[in-house]
Amino acid sequence: MGKAQSSSYFVILALSIAVNLLLVFQFCVDGEWRLTWSKRAAEEAERVAAIPCSGHGTAYLDGLVLDGKEPVCECNSCYEGPDCSEFVTECAANADSGDPYFLQPFWMQHAAQSAVLVAGWHRMGYSYPDGSYISAELEGHIRKLHATVGNAVTQGRYIVFGAGSTQLLNAAVHALSSHNSSNSSSPASVVATIPYYRLYKTQTEFFRSLDYRFEGDTSSFLNISEAGKVIEFVTSPNNPDGKLNKAVLHGPNASAIYDRVYYWPHFTAIPNPADDDLMLFSLSKLTGHAGSRFGWAVIKNESVYQKMTEYMSSSSMGVSRDAQLRALKLINVVLETRGKQIFEFGFHTMRNRWESLSKILSLSNRFSLQKLGPRYCTYFQKIRGPSPAYAWVKCEREEDTDCYEVLKAANITGRSGSQFSAPDRYVRLSLIRSQDDFDILIQRLTQLVSEERQQQNHANNFLQLKKPLMSTLRRGLVY
Amino acid sequence: MGKAQSSSYFVILALSIAVNLLLVFQFCVDGEWRLTWSKRAAEEAERVAAIPCSGHGTAYLDGLVLDGKEPVCECNSCYEGPDCSEFVTECAANADSGDPYFLQPFWMQHAAQSAVLVAGWHRMGYSYPDGSYISAELEGHIRKLHATVGNAVTQGRYIVFGAGSTQLLNAAVHALSSHNSSNSSSPASVVATIPYYRLYKTQTEFFRSLDYRFEGDTSSFLNISEAGKVIEFVTSPNNPDGKLNKAVLHGPNASAIYDRVYYWPHFTAIPNPADDDLMLFSLSKLTGHAGSRFGWAVIKNESVYQKMTEYMSSSSMGVSRDAQLRALKLINVVLETRGKQIFEFGFHTMRNRWESLSKILSLSNRFSLQKLGPRYCTYFQKIRGPSPAYAWVKCEREEDTDCYEVLKAANITGRSGSQFSAPDRYVRLSLIRSQDDFDILIQRLTQLVSEERQQQNHANNFLQLKKPLMSTLRRGLVY
Repeated sequence: MGKAQSSSYFVILALSIAVNLLLVFQFCVDGEWRLTWSKRAAEEAERVAAIPCSGHGTAYLDGLVLDGKEPVCECNSCYEGPDCSEFVTECAANADSGDPYFLQPFWMQHAAQSAVLVAGWHRMGYSYPDGSYISAELEGHIRKLHATVGNAVTQGRYIVFGAGSTQLLNAAVHALSSHNSSNSSSPASVVATIPYYRLYKTQTEFFRSLDYRFEGDTSSFLNISEAGKVIEFVTSPNNPDGKLNKAVLHGPNASAIYDRVYYWPHFTAIPNPADDDLMLFSLSKLTGHAGSRFGWAVIKNESVYQKMTEYMSSSSMGVSRDAQLRALKLINVVLETRGKQIFEFGFHTMRNRWESLSKILSLSNRFSLQKLGPRYCTYFQKIRGPSPAYAWVKCEREEDTDCYEVLKAANITGRSGSQFSAPDRYVRLSLIRSQDDFDILIQRLTQLVSEERQQQNHANNFLQLKKPLMSTLRRGLVY
Repeated sequence: MGKAQSSSYFVILALSIAVNLLLVFQFCVDGEWRLTWSKRAAEEAERVAAIPCSGHGTAYLDGLVLDGKEPVCECNSCYEGPDCSEFVTECAANADSGDPYFLQPFWMQHAAQSAVLVAGWHRMGYSYPDGSYISAELEGHIRKLHATVGNAVTQGRYIVFGAGSTQLLNAAVHALSSHNSSNSSSPASVVATIPYYRLYKTQTEFFRSLDYRFEGDTSSFLNISEAGKVIEFVTSPNNPDGKLNKAVLHGPNASAIYDRVYYWPHFTAIPNPADDDLMLFSLSKLTGHAGSRFGWAVIKNESVYQKMTEYMSSSSMGVSRDAQLRALKLINVVLETRGKQIFEFGFHTMRNRWESLSKILSLSNRFSLQKLGPRYCTYFQKIRGPSPAYAWVKCEREEDTDCYEVLKAANITGRSGSQFSAPDRYVRLSLIRSQDDFDILIQRLTQLVSEERQQQNHANNFLQLKKPLMSTLRRGLVY
């Protein structure tokens, strides 16, 4: 064996050993923990996430499965085909429901931090170690979150969890209406100021309780000091119009349920920490996870807290522990940057959408938008423009009495004013849906407004044309 | 370079290359998918699962976290210490609530199949692609499950999901009481046969509806054919006594809600597929996941189905999509072996527990158990002995009017008969808790029964002693 040959052996051997070391390093140091039982679930999730849906859809672990056992793409509105790549040209813009998909890209960008692996034996029992149905860790995270954002006082307050704010709304009505047994002879009146979120009415009526009755608009109660107990729903910022509403009714018989689900920097400046007696929040409008059905109430009064806790036990034995685990993880991601990442993402998205929409509608005389001004935000520590969750559009033409139908004819699906007990001259457009939905909405609105302007130009031209014609005619008549 | 040296070089090189190949194979073939974003969550879950709790406790991802940022062990009753290794000698056996921890070891044995990785962007919106709040995949799995086990007819039936059977109980009462508007003048009477699960009463009373009223025991309604609408809760197998109950009330005004949550091969022979008008099932008593809060109703009547669907929308906008995903995964594991693995595990565990308990109590004259006989099971295709979820214990001594207190004094916590509207001479012992809880229960019962036998022996000895003494005395008196 020659020297050259021998040294080339050495090189090959050295290389081989180097590769070995590298691979062993990869295994033991880089990976740190060698995954065993969790690998299958992790792989499953990554495989589903890797299914290509052209950026216009998502495949889910629990999606409908094809013969080949792979979940199918679920396409955004107006897209179809196996990979959601086909645009449905005549399709209506979906600006109806409040599905908060505007935050989906944020969670895709934070995939590693926000994923949760749930072991098969996770929290099988009914209660947490303290005997309650409420995760103490999650409650702690929620208190920390409010302190960080500065949007609500939670010190010395009680917290109850519910399946979204939805379940808590009725729990609150129940608690406030049965609070004092002294007044129990007549049912409490439940009211809200128009325009208001429809569920307040439908839910309160649905349960047909002996203790409360929905009585409609707040204004009819303003002068009734002799009325029995009154419970007022206050949504702040308001759904649909984004106003920072305050309770209208005051006095010993009046109590308010503050629906604060939109009181986050995505949607509004935070002028100060809310300190209402009973406030509701939800994961849906904070992190965008409407499907998890997780919300919480912040409560001053101990007996109201106990009644609401009892409600949660009687109605569903608390909130799914799986939803609580997920909420913990997501709120943890929010807190990692003191909310900076998600609220900047959320605010910029919503602010851009509002500006695009405002710009288009400012060219129109036919449609107008609610007025929202800039305001100092203690969270961002600066004055910031509006970025509401919904546009509350008014059809200004006398003949356009049904604004929903006017937009429907232009291939835009909103939610009609009557759904908020307001005139049908109003319509709500949801701005918190996917970017696809918003883009199509803007496209349709642009077309609608440009048609309006063309008509106006025609009309103006006609008037221009008409003027000399009329004077000629008039002249003819005179002469 | 010598030949020997050269050949040893070869050997080393060959070995090194072999190791290379092996490592590359491990990477590319064995691992198949190279995990990226899911790795952190998977690792987190495995690290928590690896926290040693001595087999007497569990650490959870959302458990209380120590300063070092590691969740703490949550110990089973009667164990304490950082790793749950210390037995609390004077501690009471916990046989109270129905936490179905008996299935926890099953899920630990099936860790890889049952884990779920939830991506941060999983199901953020309110609805599934069909616009409903119900996962079509999960509904399909549930139908397949019932067909496989043969415990319920689902063909041509509607299915509604709820937060455990708990939420569905009230949804069903609501639907059945408001079903026909013709009879709406007087509220429907809600009844159940003693002994019955307390929630039927507390929940129905809690909601204080105009449409229904809890009226107690079924027996008071037997002869009232002129009564208004009556809704009967039927639990089959019954909680607490495991009997396969049937509805007592019949007729055009009577309807039944069949609580079938224990109608699985763990707890009872399955004589035939249940085909009641309205049946409730839950994940809690099928897979043991009480904490997920997931249940379903199987419904014959379309309008009842619609009312229950409306209830679920109004009260909580459906069930957490996270809980639905988990249920899908778990039911999928059940189906993988056509239920064989879980039902054999569940049945053998429950059967052994029942046999241990029966054996001890058979030595006692002070305590008796409910009578349950062997029965042919269509699922196991053989005659099988009883394996109920609960023991319904009766204190036979005249003076033992409060059986709960009798057991309490012996360091056993059950649930008193009055909690089931039955005499306090009865007490329910939960047999579905952890093995630790069951072992301590058996230990305490063994001691209690052996004390009884000792007392009896003393009494017998005393009688033996007394007899000659008495005759001596008597003799003395005569003579």
